[in-house]
Amino acid sequence: MSKVNEIEALTSEIRAFAVSRDWERFHTPKNLAMAIAGEAGELVAEFQWIKEDESAKSALSVRKLDDVQMEIADVAIYLLRLSDVLGIDLAAAIRKKMEINENRF
Amino acid sequence: MSKVNEIEALTSEIRAFAVSRDWERFHTPKNLAMAIAGEAGELVAEFQWIKEDESAKSALSVRKLDDVQMEIADVAIYLLRLSDVLGIDLAAAIRKKMEINENRF
Amino acid sequence: MSKVNEIEALTSEIRAFAVSRDWERFHTPKNLAMAIAGEAGELVAEFQWIKEDESAKSALSVRKLDDVQMEIADVAIYLLRLSDVLGIDLAAAIRKKMEINENRF
Amino acid sequence: MSKVNEIEALTSEIRAFAVSRDWERFHTPKNLAMAIAGEAGELVAEFQWIKEDESAKSALSVRKLDDVQMEIADVAIYLLRLSDVLGIDLAAAIRKKMEINENRF
Repeated sequence: MSKVNEIEALTSEIRAFAVSRDWERFHTPKNLAMAIAGEAGELVAEFQWIKEDESAKSALSVRKLDDVQMEIADVAIYLLRLSDVLGIDLAAAIRKKMEINENRF
Repeated sequence: MSKVNEIEALTSEIRAFAVSRDWERFHTPKNLAMAIAGEAGELVAEFQWIKEDESAKSALSVRKLDDVQMEIADVAIYLLRLSDVLGIDLAAAIRKKMEINENRF
Repeated sequence: MSKVNEIEALTSEIRAFAVSRDWERFHTPKNLAMAIAGEAGELVAEFQWIKEDESAKSALSVRKLDDVQMEIADVAIYLLRLSDVLGIDLAAAIRKKMEINENRF
Repeated sequence: MSKVNEIEALTSEIRAFAVSRDWERFHTPKNLAMAIAGEAGELVAEFQWIKEDESAKSALSVRKLDDVQMEIADVAIYLLRLSDVLGIDLAAAIRKKMEINENRF
């Protein structure tokens, strides 16, 4: 295998970060769900006063795109951490949900 | 290469789903950020009336864990879609943010 | 006094509703903040796929406006409940924040 | 009438603040719903790493309680503004929703 599973690799790095700071006791599913909602709030705030076409990649400044990127990363980090803590295979969960969506829409 | 990049593979599947339904016009960054906030709200609602220790994997019913898994997937799907629409390499963004966090904490 | 304070009256009604169902034990500030985030997620979801001008009062259907109204009420109910539980005078808090905003913008 | 309606008074003050800064064009329902979600995210973040009993009024520091108060005010300000823009009588909406809840629970 020439390439490791990227989602698992990122999950391990995020777990090591938490363990080394003794943050595991804070990372209950309830708290991590709150952290995801908090970061999602920061992400939506980036776009609240701009128009839809102003939110396109081609219309965003480099600075703004970088800010958005960091907010997306924050949501993703806590999402991977929550999946890890709950023993969820995120890729499998996404595929299962996509299948449900396929049948629904 | 024996294994494709999983994040890219999922991103392609989610993009194909949107394209086949002609939903690209709805998928502006502004709207996708809203969808992420909406799904994060559903995720946090799963845990709002239970205690921290009741939110642990070992304490959740199979049914509840499955519901939570589907909410996590919903957030992840829109997060991958937003990254795709903005041309963001999500794994690279997460690593960049982790590096910032390493220096901060 | 010919008119009671409406915020206080609504707060009392919401408190009575919670007390009569023995829900006070669930209504910790942490949990109520989660409930507000959850309901705010439902509110933002009402507008996620429509354009800004389609979200105007004149453009919304009666049905949609009613749905939005009920989501606004849900956020407000938990906001009044949280203020009550924390002993916060909501009107005074709003005026204090408006004063800060006056000086900032 | 010795006491004006407080919700209407606050709504007028918030409207005047927006009008004087020429912010009405930003205050579409879609954008205001996003602002509410963003502020709700900041509110939930105040409580994400503390335990339920640590979130009680008696356990919060004066500084923390003040921060929470200002986040509650932010959500309330945008909620009043959105109700105003949509022509919604917030007190009536809350009472209507409470009645629905009475029959449901």
